[in-house]
Amino acid sequence: MSRGRFVVLEGIEGAGKSTHAAFLAGWLRQQGIGVVAAREPGGTALGERLREILLDPEVTGMPPLAELLLMFAARSASLEEVILPALDEGLWVICDRFVDSSYAYQSHGRGVPRKYVEALEEQVLGGLRPDLTILLDTPVRVGLSRKADPQGGDRFERESREFFERVRAGYLERAALGGDGYRLVDASKSLEEVQTDLKDAVRPLVP
Amino acid sequence: MSRGRFVVLEGIEGAGKSTHAAFLAGWLRQQGIGVVAAREPGGTALGERLREILLDPEVTGMPPLAELLLMFAARSASLEEVILPALDEGLWVICDRFVDSSYAYQSHGRGVPRKYVEALEEQVLGGLRPDLTILLDTPVRVGLSRKADPQGGDRFERESREFFERVRAGYLERAALGGDGYRLVDASKSLEEVQTDLKDAVRPLVP
Repeated sequence: MSRGRFVVLEGIEGAGKSTHAAFLAGWLRQQGIGVVAAREPGGTALGERLREILLDPEVTGMPPLAELLLMFAARSASLEEVILPALDEGLWVICDRFVDSSYAYQSHGRGVPRKYVEALEEQVLGGLRPDLTILLDTPVRVGLSRKADPQGGDRFERESREFFERVRAGYLERAALGGDGYRLVDASKSLEEVQTDLKDAVRPLVP
Repeated sequence: MSRGRFVVLEGIEGAGKSTHAAFLAGWLRQQGIGVVAAREPGGTALGERLREILLDPEVTGMPPLAELLLMFAARSASLEEVILPALDEGLWVICDRFVDSSYAYQSHGRGVPRKYVEALEEQVLGGLRPDLTILLDTPVRVGLSRKADPQGGDRFERESREFFERVRAGYLERAALGGDGYRLVDASKSLEEVQTDLKDAVRPLVP
């Protein structure tokens, strides 16, 4: 039995990650591939407890470095309990956010030095890297208009437009530097067009 | 106005850290010194939320590396919100546990590589180190008998005697290597004797 494939969807709020992750999982299952869905932060008992804290708008003044450490704590549980066991069983993992979110949000967005993210990536992931990271790119204006909750939203959704511009730029830099392991998909296109692009992106990995 | 002093009490479960921290704070106040009490994990809104998770015996299977990251996340909030502002104001900080707990529990106890703790210590603390770390040392048998809750106790208190032997050895190694910044106090002695030793330990720092 061969090892499964690890596919990550990344993007800012409103890029459609969870919708497209569900679509992709369904399409892969139609191809006869066993798929496990994962999300960050969350997907494990510990991760969901941390997700509550990380998204809670009542939690004000969290140091950016603490936010980074919590993200990687959730990630280490997700790896150990969900991602690695699934890949070992030959299943595919479709993950809604992974390490690139930390580069984009905590480093580019919040200003944590990139070398701190690199050090944690090395500690927590060891040698593991996704087989494919799909960046669902959308202008910040478009993404936020899809999510915009005039009453507030979660701790991240309440951030400023400038914050999300830095996050998007961080993602684009990762994709530009990432080479073969990255595919940029224009998530401001129609649902059908994005789905076609997603299928094109993962098809080369399908046996 | 001069900077305050940063004193940490360390030791295994049942060593008497919280009792002795309260005593020490009271005695210092009698000497006319302003004191802030801190504890880890906790002491901030974020830290107390993380403490709930870290001590919850229902949270099973937490990866040791996740535990380490959560401890340092709580620590970074404590530093930013409590410890550094107090020291800057010229107050003393008496902290119930600090970085040595991570060396003792997560590294010696749980097996996380020491270099991971060192990297996080560098990231989160920068150049800050306690002025004095007092290790309240007690045989594991004595400490556990003081804490022993036949119904279970928190997530750490439920660990095996062997775990606490490794933790104690980790503390003793830190104290042996730490030089002037460490004082070893025999916490199996009577309350009065330990209090005398504590006063002797901090007296050189009192102006």
